[in-house]
Amino acid sequence: MTEFGLIEYVAKLFGDVERQEWEAIGDDCTVLPIGGGEVLVMTTDMLQEDVHFLRSATSARELGRKSLAVNLSDVAAMGVKPVATLLSIALPQDLTDEWAKEFLEGFHSLAKEHSVALVGGDTTSSRAGVSINVVAIGRGEAQRVKRRSAAQVGDVIYVAGELGVSALGLRDIFSGDVESDFAAQHRNPRPQVEEGVWLGARQEVHAMMDLSDGLASDLCHILKLSNCGAEIDVDAIPAVQGDVEAAVCGGEDYKLLFTVEESSAEAFERDFQLKFQYPVYRIGRVVASAEPTIQWFKDGDNITPSWRGFSHF
Amino acid sequence: MTEFGLIEYVAKLFGDVERQEWEAIGDDCTVLPIGGGEVLVMTTDMLQEDVHFLRSATSARELGRKSLAVNLSDVAAMGVKPVATLLSIALPQDLTDEWAKEFLEGFHSLAKEHSVALVGGDTTSSRAGVSINVVAIGRGEAQRVKRRSAAQVGDVIYVAGELGVSALGLRDIFSGDVESDFAAQHRNPRPQVEEGVWLGARQEVHAMMDLSDGLASDLCHILKLSNCGAEIDVDAIPAVQGDVEAAVCGGEDYKLLFTVEESSAEAFERDFQLKFQYPVYRIGRVVASAEPTIQWFKDGDNITPSWRGFSHF
Repeated sequence: MTEFGLIEYVAKLFGDVERQEWEAIGDDCTVLPIGGGEVLVMTTDMLQEDVHFLRSATSARELGRKSLAVNLSDVAAMGVKPVATLLSIALPQDLTDEWAKEFLEGFHSLAKEHSVALVGGDTTSSRAGVSINVVAIGRGEAQRVKRRSAAQVGDVIYVAGELGVSALGLRDIFSGDVESDFAAQHRNPRPQVEEGVWLGARQEVHAMMDLSDGLASDLCHILKLSNCGAEIDVDAIPAVQGDVEAAVCGGEDYKLLFTVEESSAEAFERDFQLKFQYPVYRIGRVVASAEPTIQWFKDGDNITPSWRGFSHF
Repeated sequence: MTEFGLIEYVAKLFGDVERQEWEAIGDDCTVLPIGGGEVLVMTTDMLQEDVHFLRSATSARELGRKSLAVNLSDVAAMGVKPVATLLSIALPQDLTDEWAKEFLEGFHSLAKEHSVALVGGDTTSSRAGVSINVVAIGRGEAQRVKRRSAAQVGDVIYVAGELGVSALGLRDIFSGDVESDFAAQHRNPRPQVEEGVWLGARQEVHAMMDLSDGLASDLCHILKLSNCGAEIDVDAIPAVQGDVEAAVCGGEDYKLLFTVEESSAEAFERDFQLKFQYPVYRIGRVVASAEPTIQWFKDGDNITPSWRGFSHF
C-alpha cells in the first residue's frame, strides 16, 4: 500500500464520522474555528530513522531543529503564526543521554526563535530506531488562512526562494560529501515563518502551500483542489546551479509556493523584496483546465518532461 | 536517562519560551482557553512495537482501538468530551495491507462510537517495527476542566471501577494464555468517556486523572500538584480477584481516579450508580501533609508495603 492509498482508505473509512467544524483533510494543516474570528491550524509529521534520516549523516541537534522546522513550515504555509508544539520521541536504549539532550537543544533552539511553546508530548523507549512525531499548532485570524483550494484562473504563481538546494544536498550526502554547503542546507531547512505570516495578511495572495515533495508534485495539489491547471515557464524556475530537475522533482526545499491576483502582482513583488530583502520568483500562471495538470513551457514551446515528485514513503 | 529525567530536562530547557495561554505540562492534557468560555484540551501518546505491544500477541484491530482508547481516556480524565484525533503511523514494508486496514478499522470503530473526527495525521514507512502516535483533542466549557492540582484536604478519593484487570491480563499473556478474559480486557481497554464528561459537570468533583501507571504511582501526581497527602484503606480497593498488588501497581487500567468534596460524597455515589449502573469505589481520603505521600491502612493499622507504579519506559 502506498502512502496515498492509505490516506484515501482512511478518508473513506472516516466518512461516517461527523467532522463538526474541522475542515476536511487535504491542506498543509487542518483548520478549526475557535470563535472571536480566530482559527487554530494543526499539522503533524512523523520521522523514522533510516527512512527520513540516517543517524550517521545528521547530528542530533540538526535533527531536532529539522523535525520542528518541517512542521512550522506547514503552519506558515497556511498564513498563520505557529504558537505551540507537541513532541513525541522513542529512543533506543543504546542511545546516549548526550544524543537525546542535543536533539532537544536543537528542537528548543528553533522553537525559541519563533516563540513556539512546547505544550505536550510523550517519551518512550524503542526496540529499533529513533522515532519522532511532532505536532505544530498555529493561531490567527480566520480571514488570513490561505488554502490550497483558493487559486484563481489568471493568478500569478510564485515561489519564495531558490529550489533544488535540498536535492543537491541529498545527492552530496549519498556521494559521501556530508560537509558540503548543500548537505548542510538539506539538514537545516529554514521554515519561512515570517514570510508565511506576512503573506497571510495579504489579500492578493490566494492559494498557498509549502514545497516538501517538489514543485511537479506539490503544485498539482493546489490545481486539484482549485479545479484549474497551470502553465509554468521552465526558464523562470529559480533552479540552484541551473539544475531544473532537482528544482522541480527534489523534495524538502520547504519554500512557500503561492498564487497572487494578477493585477496586484507587480506591487506585491516590490513589497516582498522590500520586506524580506530577497525576491520572490514568478514562475507561471493559473489557467482554466478540466484537468489539474501543469503545462511546461521553454522558450515559448510546450514541452513534456517526465518530472515526478519526491516520495518520502 | 529515564522517561522522567527526559521530561524534567525538557521542562527546564523550555523555561525560556513564553507559554502564552497554554497551561504548564503536568496534567493528563494541556489546556488552551479559546474564548467564549471554552477550552481545548490536548494529549499525545506514542506506541512502539515490542515496547508497548507485541504484534504476535495483539490483533491489528485491537491495537487500533487501544491506541485511540488510551488517548480518549486522557481527555475524559480532564472532564472534557473528546472531539478530534490525529494519527501518525509508520509501517514496516513487510507488513500486509490487510494489517494496516484492520488497524485503521479498529481505530475508526472507537472513534465512531465517540464521534471523534480524524482531522489530520501522517503515514510513512519504517525500517524497523510499527510506530504509532495519536493525538486526541477535547473541547468544552472551561469551568468543567478537572485538574490534578485541585484535590482538597478532606476530599474522598474514588476509583470508577475495578483495578488490576490489565495487570492480570498481561500476566496471562506472558504465560501464554492470550485468550483469557483478562488478556482480552488488557488488549481492549474501555476509556471512560461518558463518565469523564459526566464527572466534568459535577462541581463536587475536584481533582481527576486516569490510571495508566497504577494507583500507587498515579495518585502521587495528584498529591504532588495539590500539595497534600492521602490515606488509603487497602481493604476498600476494588482489586480484581483480591489481588491488591496487581490493583495498586499494575498499569493500563484506564479507570478514572478522582476526589470529591466530602459533604457531597453520599449523594454523588448514588447519582453515579443511577447514571452508570455500576458503583464508584471510595478508597480513602485526602489529608494535610507536607509530603505528597500515600499512607496505606489495613484493619485500621498503618502498613508500609513496597508498592511502586508500572513503568512503560
